[in-house]
Amino acid sequence: MTDYKPVPEDKFSFGLWTVQYPGRDPFGEPTRPPMDPVRAVEKLAEIGAYGINFHDDDVVPFGADDAERDRILDGLRKALADTGLVVTTATTNLFTHPVFKDGGFTSNNREVRRYALKKVMRNIDLAAELGAKVYVAWGGRDGQESGGAKNVMEALERNREAYNLLGEFVTDRGYDIKFAIEPKPNEPRGDILLPTVGHAMAFISTLDRPELVGVNPEIGHEEMAGLNAAAGYAQALWQGKLFHIDLNGQHGPKYDQDLRFGAGNVRGAFWVVDTLLAGGYDGPVHFDFKTPRTEDDKGVWIAAEACMTNYLILREKAQAFRADPEVQSALADAQLPELAKPTISEGETWSDIEAAEVPDVEAIGAHGMAFERLDQLALEHLYGVRS
Amino acid sequence: MTDYKPVPEDKFSFGLWTVQYPGRDPFGEPTRPPMDPVRAVEKLAEIGAYGINFHDDDVVPFGADDAERDRILDGLRKALADTGLVVTTATTNLFTHPVFKDGGFTSNNREVRRYALKKVMRNIDLAAELGAKVYVAWGGRDGQESGGAKNVMEALERNREAYNLLGEFVTDRGYDIKFAIEPKPNEPRGDILLPTVGHAMAFISTLDRPELVGVNPEIGHEEMAGLNAAAGYAQALWQGKLFHIDLNGQHGPKYDQDLRFGAGNVRGAFWVVDTLLAGGYDGPVHFDFKTPRTEDDKGVWIAAEACMTNYLILREKAQAFRADPEVQSALADAQLPELAKPTISEGETWSDIEAAEVPDVEAIGAHGMAFERLDQLALEHLYGVRS
Amino acid sequence: MTDYKPVPEDKFSFGLWTVQYPGRDPFGEPTRPPMDPVRAVEKLAEIGAYGINFHDDDVVPFGADDAERDRILDGLRKALADTGLVVTTATTNLFTHPVFKDGGFTSNNREVRRYALKKVMRNIDLAAELGAKVYVAWGGRDGQESGGAKNVMEALERNREAYNLLGEFVTDRGYDIKFAIEPKPNEPRGDILLPTVGHAMAFISTLDRPELVGVNPEIGHEEMAGLNAAAGYAQALWQGKLFHIDLNGQHGPKYDQDLRFGAGNVRGAFWVVDTLLAGGYDGPVHFDFKTPRTEDDKGVWIAAEACMTNYLILREKAQAFRADPEVQSALADAQLPELAKPTISEGETWSDIEAAEVPDVEAIGAHGMAFERLDQLALEHLYGVRS
Amino acid sequence: MTDYKPVPEDKFSFGLWTVQYPGRDPFGEPTRPPMDPVRAVEKLAEIGAYGINFHDDDVVPFGADDAERDRILDGLRKALADTGLVVTTATTNLFTHPVFKDGGFTSNNREVRRYALKKVMRNIDLAAELGAKVYVAWGGRDGQESGGAKNVMEALERNREAYNLLGEFVTDRGYDIKFAIEPKPNEPRGDILLPTVGHAMAFISTLDRPELVGVNPEIGHEEMAGLNAAAGYAQALWQGKLFHIDLNGQHGPKYDQDLRFGAGNVRGAFWVVDTLLAGGYDGPVHFDFKTPRTEDDKGVWIAAEACMTNYLILREKAQAFRADPEVQSALADAQLPELAKPTISEGETWSDIEAAEVPDVEAIGAHGMAFERLDQLALEHLYGVRS
Repeated sequence: MTDYKPVPEDKFSFGLWTVQYPGRDPFGEPTRPPMDPVRAVEKLAEIGAYGINFHDDDVVPFGADDAERDRILDGLRKALADTGLVVTTATTNLFTHPVFKDGGFTSNNREVRRYALKKVMRNIDLAAELGAKVYVAWGGRDGQESGGAKNVMEALERNREAYNLLGEFVTDRGYDIKFAIEPKPNEPRGDILLPTVGHAMAFISTLDRPELVGVNPEIGHEEMAGLNAAAGYAQALWQGKLFHIDLNGQHGPKYDQDLRFGAGNVRGAFWVVDTLLAGGYDGPVHFDFKTPRTEDDKGVWIAAEACMTNYLILREKAQAFRADPEVQSALADAQLPELAKPTISEGETWSDIEAAEVPDVEAIGAHGMAFERLDQLALEHLYGVRS
Repeated sequence: MTDYKPVPEDKFSFGLWTVQYPGRDPFGEPTRPPMDPVRAVEKLAEIGAYGINFHDDDVVPFGADDAERDRILDGLRKALADTGLVVTTATTNLFTHPVFKDGGFTSNNREVRRYALKKVMRNIDLAAELGAKVYVAWGGRDGQESGGAKNVMEALERNREAYNLLGEFVTDRGYDIKFAIEPKPNEPRGDILLPTVGHAMAFISTLDRPELVGVNPEIGHEEMAGLNAAAGYAQALWQGKLFHIDLNGQHGPKYDQDLRFGAGNVRGAFWVVDTLLAGGYDGPVHFDFKTPRTEDDKGVWIAAEACMTNYLILREKAQAFRADPEVQSALADAQLPELAKPTISEGETWSDIEAAEVPDVEAIGAHGMAFERLDQLALEHLYGVRS
Repeated sequence: MTDYKPVPEDKFSFGLWTVQYPGRDPFGEPTRPPMDPVRAVEKLAEIGAYGINFHDDDVVPFGADDAERDRILDGLRKALADTGLVVTTATTNLFTHPVFKDGGFTSNNREVRRYALKKVMRNIDLAAELGAKVYVAWGGRDGQESGGAKNVMEALERNREAYNLLGEFVTDRGYDIKFAIEPKPNEPRGDILLPTVGHAMAFISTLDRPELVGVNPEIGHEEMAGLNAAAGYAQALWQGKLFHIDLNGQHGPKYDQDLRFGAGNVRGAFWVVDTLLAGGYDGPVHFDFKTPRTEDDKGVWIAAEACMTNYLILREKAQAFRADPEVQSALADAQLPELAKPTISEGETWSDIEAAEVPDVEAIGAHGMAFERLDQLALEHLYGVRS
Repeated sequence: MTDYKPVPEDKFSFGLWTVQYPGRDPFGEPTRPPMDPVRAVEKLAEIGAYGINFHDDDVVPFGADDAERDRILDGLRKALADTGLVVTTATTNLFTHPVFKDGGFTSNNREVRRYALKKVMRNIDLAAELGAKVYVAWGGRDGQESGGAKNVMEALERNREAYNLLGEFVTDRGYDIKFAIEPKPNEPRGDILLPTVGHAMAFISTLDRPELVGVNPEIGHEEMAGLNAAAGYAQALWQGKLFHIDLNGQHGPKYDQDLRFGAGNVRGAFWVVDTLLAGGYDGPVHFDFKTPRTEDDKGVWIAAEACMTNYLILREKAQAFRADPEVQSALADAQLPELAKPTISEGETWSDIEAAEVPDVEAIGAHGMAFERLDQLALEHLYGVRS
């Protein structure tokens, strides 16, 4: 609806399942017909996307035989070639079929755990062939509704086994693929293992090949725990672990809304984009949203396009905010440049700190941090009344 | 009020500030008079506590001169000697005085950051002298209300500097002290750095001496983010990072209630105790609660005593639950023993998984996990109708 | 699993949909086969239920022709006659079919609003024939994901029209049926009209026949908004509006968990039962839960039975709590008997209050309310360590 | 910072306590000195406010004698006269002093209840003299931390007594004053009586003089319960009960943030303003915010001014949104005009609905509601990229 037009350099990508989502929810039947993956690819190209992401089962129905699989994949390859869309990412569906009802890598059932790994490896082979550089892993069924049903320490141990095996697999195969764990606090399980970007990065630090595994934070998932999504992205960037992103919208702790990016917490979305720019994130700008069940196919594409539009709007605003001389002066007043300086000077040790004078704590305590002016400037950029 | 009497082996400890809390809140003046730390120590001993924890300013008023400090500390030492209470833990107040209004280790003001470190080191010296083995660090003011006011990546860098310096300090001094970072999602800041036990452990993995730093999860803090506290304790235990615990009660995402342990999420408290027992936690069983403002001094001690009583009740219940033959049979039906088995057998690699047969996914999907019966047994143990 | 056996006087009732729930959720296919309503009735009778509640579509598939409907209803009538189960309640499914995607009584589409009313009236006729005394109305699709999509004032006006028409309908028909509006804050819509028991009762006060309409508060729905469910039940009882109840379990603000009653917020469940007893609620004790997707048919019936067991356990505990002499003394110390006394004495007016002496505010402020002891006694009753 | 300048017709008003807030929070001492009410009035006038609101104790310290009170009030009257500010509203502090630790109108202590009424009446006399037309009542201490400590049904009965008495008081006195109850879900009590705008309006329907009592919804308070604030304002407007408003900012269920208006949930703020305009609210546009503790006096006034600026910006945007022809077309596509039509035509009864044909439910279900396009247009107005 605006002049904000995506170009390939923007690296906008979509999960096929996002536009395929037929509008089924816990209380209602689908309102939209199934969408063939080829159509999804073609339409995404048409609206200006750069790449796609997919679960194995988004493309090839669960349980399809090899012949059907080949036929379908040929169609997908052709659609990709015809449109020029790239496969930035792939992932595995370890949650829809009843076999995964207690999870994949951490199901209490060992056969399920092994099958889950096999299913992942098969799709990694396809992902590698299609050129994906990131393999997302959402263990959404790995969790519990009740405390006795899952030994969390053992589940973590099983999870570690799984990622260690997969790390070995891609290494042995020579694939240029990294993993991105997607945290979520709950839904569809009462509590999910690795509920936040923090828990996932802590887990990763225990792996045999931690360098192969990062995170894929989803705005909505962090906000379902009442957390500041931008701060989570920042910690992931700081730890060198932001391998992928899932942008969308959410209104606080409630069911997973998966609103189009920009809807939901608008102010939070601004700071997420600002953080991605500041941290130099250069992976795919990936949207994981669901078009509300009230919409028809036309609404699906309006929503998809709006994800990109809103990112472009917010990117422009974040850049204008940082370039604004009044903002720069406000940042100085708020002592941000001082935060960038090391606390300990070159050559100092704790004994220098110990020996230092106590500063004038009353004067410092009385000196305003000037954050309100700075934030009001940001808000006015967001409102578009300063540009 | 019951037969559950604490003994020293229970290692129950309290922050002095818990019983000292005078009932001031954002909307009201104190309802209780200040409490001298010596009285706090004596009364805690009387009700059966084993140890204490304290902020520097709980004992010595901020800004007191050396003479006053010495006088007060002599009183404290005497009270400890008289009562036999041990100092399990100490910590620093980096939040009450206006100088810390933008945080301690990550204040935008570099002088504040340096002063915060100096204040911590001074109290570590005291902690070491008094025998504390754990030094808790709650960076409750390290955060933001607005996105521009804090560069989170730089704040994390400053935080890393601080913990690296402190690690060097205790090492150089030869202190047998470890640090336990206490995460909290928000309050008194809009968003706090290291908001959950996961974020804190992820941060710790970046330190020079990660082995010196663990976490001090507080039940209420995790529940303020809607997270399952027991699962957080479990991940910390699994990562070898549960250096200290803060037990209390909370009713979900709202202001920090600090209810006495047992009040709040009763079912969650049961699973926290079960997890601590299963994970072999053997540090101090520390309570961080605030007696509601409606109570007088008598109420303070009833609440403090009840923290211990409730732990003893829940410990007994958790032990009875695990010992119950019907529970053990239910655990087997729920396939918990199978979760304890490695997914990959000795000598197997990914190629064995790849080559394995697809299991009968329909049959597995149709087989019930039997979690409801198991959880109902747990609930009946909690209700005390099976013992 | 225990000696707590339901009897008809307990008036335990279940929605047919609760045991019929096949385990489909936003991320997964059903794990259990469809359940015939006749089997549901027979099994509920077997485990000790007294009555049932049903949506029209739980019994007769949406769109069935009259012949099929008659055949199915004959089967239901026979099952009810055979088992002796009563129909306490009925309700209408205005949410599953895509036609209701923007709601029923308040859909933007006027044809849908009219059809929704017609569908309700048809099922009220059946409900009346089967002896139901309460007709529940959950407008779960009446809501919005975005602010412009619904004019809330007009939606309320349409909702008022609907309830006024239905009031006229049952009056004209001479049915002995009352309506119970079931509030819910969100899910499946981003925000639902009449989100809490308070909003629903406020709405009811605007109706032509307010006496015909009350509320059906669900524990989980109130707790999804972080509200104290027992306090909501209490206000509904106080306003004479508690026409029906939906008991289940939830863990705070997140997706609608519909755990079996007793699981979830255990302490809250105790106070709900205590409130129902204190307020003299004598309608059906109705459970609205969903057995987790991990379970098979056996798990469904364990969960259903446990709802009743847990109610019986908690009822026994609440009665023991109120009968305990130590509790009665603690209630007196906490000044509950004084709360029961009118603030204004017989014959007094505001001028008496105006003329009264200022009390000794310092003394009163210093006097403890003794709530902690009282609450600890309640908790010990809940734990079963005092009985 | 912008061209948005308040004029008296905007009716912007502030609670004196908002700018007086010294920055004390549960974990920290004040960072700003006390502010004399006269200075508050003068500065508010200077930045363009139209009116003020005050608690009795904001102006006259609790416990001041009559002479001091007279002296202070003379100063206030003079400041009002000098600046031309009007007193739009007044209210009573029933929460700061320990005497109110268990509430005001519903304290378990009857003496406190009577004293609370006396304190309110005294300040109503002053409010009437100063020309206030609305008297706000926030019963923030009327609540509980534990279920046994408060009999909610009796507390509601005491609350009813109080409002009935006050209604009689203002009627007898001939005051042109109405009451506005301010709901809040929790903080400083674990659960507060009348937690949402719905509960308050339901309560009001039970009063002797319901016409004298409406509500004062605060954005942040509704959002602390995860509710849609605009929808709450809409229901209050629809019931004719929106007697006053408290605008500010909040980030979901957590402690009461009281951010300046515009900060917090930006998208929600837009819809609140749109709703106020649509519903014809013409009372004072009142801000209830707290300047973060990080700020000095300068920051206080920047924040206060920004509340007004942001309202003016959002009002302009909401008006532009409604005037935009493309929006009007999108509203038509989304069938909003049809929602405005009665469901039942003039002269129809339920029998007409019963007799009506079943519409083509499949066709209606397949027809998109076109909400996404509408909402994206709203968002682009909010971003300022369409104006």
